[in-house]
Amino acid sequence: MHILIIGAAGMVGRKLTAALVASGQVGGSPIGRLTLADVVVPSAPAGFTGKVDTLASDLSAPGAAAALVTSRPDLIFHLAAIVSGEAEADFEKGYRINLDGMRFLLEAIRLEGQREAYKPRLVFTSSIAVFGAPYPEVIEDEFFSTPLTSYGTQKAICELLLNDYSRKGFVDGVGIRLPTISIRPGKPNAAASGFFSNILREPLSGIEAVLPVSKDVRHWFASPRAAIGFLIHAAELDTKLLGWRRSLSAPGLSATVGEEIEALRRVAGDKAVALIKDIPDAKIISMVDGWPKNFSAKRAESLGFRAEKTFDEIIRIHIEDELGGKIGG
Amino acid sequence: MHILIIGAAGMVGRKLTAALVASGQVGGSPIGRLTLADVVVPSAPAGFTGKVDTLASDLSAPGAAAALVTSRPDLIFHLAAIVSGEAEADFEKGYRINLDGMRFLLEAIRLEGQREAYKPRLVFTSSIAVFGAPYPEVIEDEFFSTPLTSYGTQKAICELLLNDYSRKGFVDGVGIRLPTISIRPGKPNAAASGFFSNILREPLSGIEAVLPVSKDVRHWFASPRAAIGFLIHAAELDTKLLGWRRSLSAPGLSATVGEEIEALRRVAGDKAVALIKDIPDAKIISMVDGWPKNFSAKRAESLGFRAEKTFDEIIRIHIEDELGGKIGG
Repeated sequence: MHILIIGAAGMVGRKLTAALVASGQVGGSPIGRLTLADVVVPSAPAGFTGKVDTLASDLSAPGAAAALVTSRPDLIFHLAAIVSGEAEADFEKGYRINLDGMRFLLEAIRLEGQREAYKPRLVFTSSIAVFGAPYPEVIEDEFFSTPLTSYGTQKAICELLLNDYSRKGFVDGVGIRLPTISIRPGKPNAAASGFFSNILREPLSGIEAVLPVSKDVRHWFASPRAAIGFLIHAAELDTKLLGWRRSLSAPGLSATVGEEIEALRRVAGDKAVALIKDIPDAKIISMVDGWPKNFSAKRAESLGFRAEKTFDEIIRIHIEDELGGKIGG
Repeated sequence: MHILIIGAAGMVGRKLTAALVASGQVGGSPIGRLTLADVVVPSAPAGFTGKVDTLASDLSAPGAAAALVTSRPDLIFHLAAIVSGEAEADFEKGYRINLDGMRFLLEAIRLEGQREAYKPRLVFTSSIAVFGAPYPEVIEDEFFSTPLTSYGTQKAICELLLNDYSRKGFVDGVGIRLPTISIRPGKPNAAASGFFSNILREPLSGIEAVLPVSKDVRHWFASPRAAIGFLIHAAELDTKLLGWRRSLSAPGLSATVGEEIEALRRVAGDKAVALIKDIPDAKIISMVDGWPKNFSAKRAESLGFRAEKTFDEIIRIHIEDELGGKIGG
């Protein structure tokens, strides 16, 4: 099996690559070849005995998608996107990367299939940003898509295209709307949602972290490990079960900031919790107010997608996967 | 006021042009200039004293949208599309005309606004094809968009773009999902939905018509006059009332074929009804089975959009507007 990962240099792409290499197979088929693409050349994974190509590729550039697809990968993960904040600030770039990139990829696959029969599985990372306030406390699987950002609009359009290209038999698509990933590894970043991870990750390493919102704030989470699990499950899924509604809200954990902190206390003690400093930020408070709080995700659960049930579990996964099993500080 | 109609040569475009000319104003502003564009040169309307330009323009051709927008119309009606059957048969043409055409138009408006402040009202004809089976008996305003045709996919994507360009302040958009227009004037056409009009229009002129489905079949209708009313109301509407959910399911009449026929009997007698021949067509029966039957359209009604309440009314409108007030045969 030949797997192409577009967006392989990002956090999700690197963890997905590592998980695929560790498993050596997808759905029982051995992985013989990996093609890893991103706007910067991704690192080749350690310990993979098959063929690996790593390359720099801007999917929105003319011919780039066709060049990736011409080697006819059996399975494609399309993870590449510019994030919400940047898509909002740079309107043209957002549409170019997040919408045109997907359309070029779908067209390249369709045209390759016109040359000679070809219908790869395409796993696409969508986002809960396809939904927009006002919404109910719990968002059901059939809630409508009314994005309030250009990023969410681009993802919603990609979902529609994925459905139509799948219905026409050009590709075998699955779209997964990922929850907010927590605990996101690495340094604190500028994303408005960063604090949800920062207030756990930094104290677990003995470092102070800022909490800019109230402890009552509720949001929707999954660990990086769960997110990788969703993508691999999407690659192995019997897509006949999806009909032509090819995108799913992934399962996750609905929790308040207060519940995050109490889980931190149980796992790492009062000393860790004491490192969280309350510094309210009106701008972040107002943004977070418009974010979804909870999803039912019944459809994805019935299809076998699984996420964590407690924040204790999410914290333990971070300690295992990122801290070598040890709490620092 | 300068009005641009894209798709002015079609049935809706011609009736809209005539209605605008008859009224002479939109929302109290006199119409000083009309630009009528279509892939074939539209006819200039009779009785208009302002400036009229008629031109052939393929919105999907490079530069065409910019050429239309450079005269900075205050109000734009975008009615141009290829129909469902053709978009399904010719995948590339459907995306080029129905999606790229809209995107080029929105981009031309945005770029014109970057040159000098410009935010026209844009009224876009969407379609109930943005919805796909299975759906409930009555489709509510918040039902999700899961099209089962490329045409419906293209219209759903246009709605998302219209929302985002409006939210960003580039255009002041309103999308109207039109019911099936009945009684459609002119000759019977190849559209699978044609019989809904044929079984009334032809007998009203003393001509036989074929009914290919059961009398139990229920569908969603509005007269051509109501459709033009929706578009003009959309042009006059206070769009602050829409928020960023800029597209609406228009009101209509949910009726069975049997109810259509009984209305024909009341208006034109048994002789007219006797001209309808039952010739079941398995292919049409199967297609119609997947079409929506009824909408609540509460949101549009609360915003002042109005449709007919009975098929008797729809038939009388056809007799007034198309038959000079007289039943033929």
